[in-house]
Amino acid sequence: MDSNRLPSFAIVGTGAIGGFYGARLQRAGHEVHFLLRGDFSHVRDHGLRIDSKDGDFVLPRVNAYDRADAVPPCDVAVVALKTVQNALLPAILPGLVKPGGVVLVLQNGLGAEENIAGFVENAHIVGGLCFICSNKIGPGHIRHIDFGSITMAPYSPNGLAAATTSPVLKLAEHFKRAGILVRTETDLQAARWKKLVWNIPYNGLSVVLNATTDQLMKNGPSRDLVTNIMEEVVMGAASCGHAIPPEYAAEMLEYTDSMPPYKTSMKIDYDEKRPLEIESIFGNPLRAICQAHGRSHRIEMLYRQLRYLNDRNCR
Amino acid sequence: MDSNRLPSFAIVGTGAIGGFYGARLQRAGHEVHFLLRGDFSHVRDHGLRIDSKDGDFVLPRVNAYDRADAVPPCDVAVVALKTVQNALLPAILPGLVKPGGVVLVLQNGLGAEENIAGFVENAHIVGGLCFICSNKIGPGHIRHIDFGSITMAPYSPNGLAAATTSPVLKLAEHFKRAGILVRTETDLQAARWKKLVWNIPYNGLSVVLNATTDQLMKNGPSRDLVTNIMEEVVMGAASCGHAIPPEYAAEMLEYTDSMPPYKTSMKIDYDEKRPLEIESIFGNPLRAICQAHGRSHRIEMLYRQLRYLNDRNCR
Repeated sequence: MDSNRLPSFAIVGTGAIGGFYGARLQRAGHEVHFLLRGDFSHVRDHGLRIDSKDGDFVLPRVNAYDRADAVPPCDVAVVALKTVQNALLPAILPGLVKPGGVVLVLQNGLGAEENIAGFVENAHIVGGLCFICSNKIGPGHIRHIDFGSITMAPYSPNGLAAATTSPVLKLAEHFKRAGILVRTETDLQAARWKKLVWNIPYNGLSVVLNATTDQLMKNGPSRDLVTNIMEEVVMGAASCGHAIPPEYAAEMLEYTDSMPPYKTSMKIDYDEKRPLEIESIFGNPLRAICQAHGRSHRIEMLYRQLRYLNDRNCR
Repeated sequence: MDSNRLPSFAIVGTGAIGGFYGARLQRAGHEVHFLLRGDFSHVRDHGLRIDSKDGDFVLPRVNAYDRADAVPPCDVAVVALKTVQNALLPAILPGLVKPGGVVLVLQNGLGAEENIAGFVENAHIVGGLCFICSNKIGPGHIRHIDFGSITMAPYSPNGLAAATTSPVLKLAEHFKRAGILVRTETDLQAARWKKLVWNIPYNGLSVVLNATTDQLMKNGPSRDLVTNIMEEVVMGAASCGHAIPPEYAAEMLEYTDSMPPYKTSMKIDYDEKRPLEIESIFGNPLRAICQAHGRSHRIEMLYRQLRYLNDRNCR
């Protein structure tokens, strides 16, 4: 990135995540290019509308595209598709990022960066974990309900912690200028495993048991099950070389107890009959644990239950 | 039992099981006394009606009771309540059986005979496993759809196999005279564990995944899960000292593949918002495995999922 001017951004997937962060970056003065599918003509004609707990705003004109080859190469490509659409990326992502640029991966679960590293060359890959509650509520219309921070960490091919590299710090600065809280970490995989301690039990059980987080927490048997599954994720992370502090699961339970009743993103997808991000949140962690010779019967059972339900839900 | 006359029967719980077998015994000439609750006045006035694949019949007059202390002591008391009602038994069962008589326990899962042995003295306890597809479809009206055999085995307090005792053989003869196929076994607990190899995965998953047996079998992930859970039941039985042949689980899969689409009895109870037999089918086997220092993560997970769903379903 040229440090004398603001970097340009290509947003791949202009939904609850990509639309929100892209709009904040454009409002902060960045050149932003939005790639869309369903909402393309609406956003081209009317721009983006953000209802946010931090202040509503409208961008009446944005650079909208329905074809990746019409987007100019940018300093940063932000991958904000659901992981179920990742098969699209090899054809579109390499052309969106300038040589020496950055690919910021704002996706759930494990394995997204490794996948991208297989077909994007000469770019820094940065993982981003979004702690945000936002939904797309209409064409080009996003509601940002709560939180909004991103934890960023550099991807390193061997999966081990890397020094916080310069591209991560620069990128974090630009997001902070746009009003987005950013934490930087050195161990991307450990950060992703920590997020799975919450995502695996709550996303999974909310779909299988048709439950909100508070319902799962108030019932003794389901609370015990959440706790056991969290312990399995912590053990699985350890077997893959990522030590999560032993008190972390208890903190996540306490944190969830303090939350208002919450419908997980996977449950929202299920109720909307959209395909679930099962492989990134469940399948890839299970395969990593299996390669490390660990066992996770409960996560595996949840994975199979979700695959059954998803297969029937999306026909 | 006096061998010169036909034994009398008290039927505790005149539903799909007790109503069907009791009616067949009365039709064969036995004196039968039916204890009921909801259907009492209808059955007192109109008797029982059986629609059966083996031939429909009506018993216009039956001995119906809504209070246990009005039932005369019988040679055989047949316990055909759902196990969720077992708290009623200590008060009613001892008075229903003559000294030296038989208690025949036609209930699901583990632990029913052991429970009854705690408050019924001076009677032989016989376990019966029903392989029948029947439903109560109206007051005093039972539809017998398929199968109908009973496997009988003597209860022995130490849980080990007993010699097939004389009361079991005599009882089996009377059922056979009434047209009911009976097999006798010596190891009651082994027979109950074998039935759990089917009941645990299909009853549990049919409720949690809202599925019929054929749906569970046709989907790869749910079929794998059924298979793994069967293996856990076989291992759990072994840890409790009941060896099930290794090919048995595969036979159960094959048998289920050959069945027409089937809604399990637990799923029927769930859909009717009746309490589920979770403790007898899941909780008691889990406690037995735990006492034997075994582990069954999948069965335990299913148990907790069912308790959550049952708690919400029956409020």
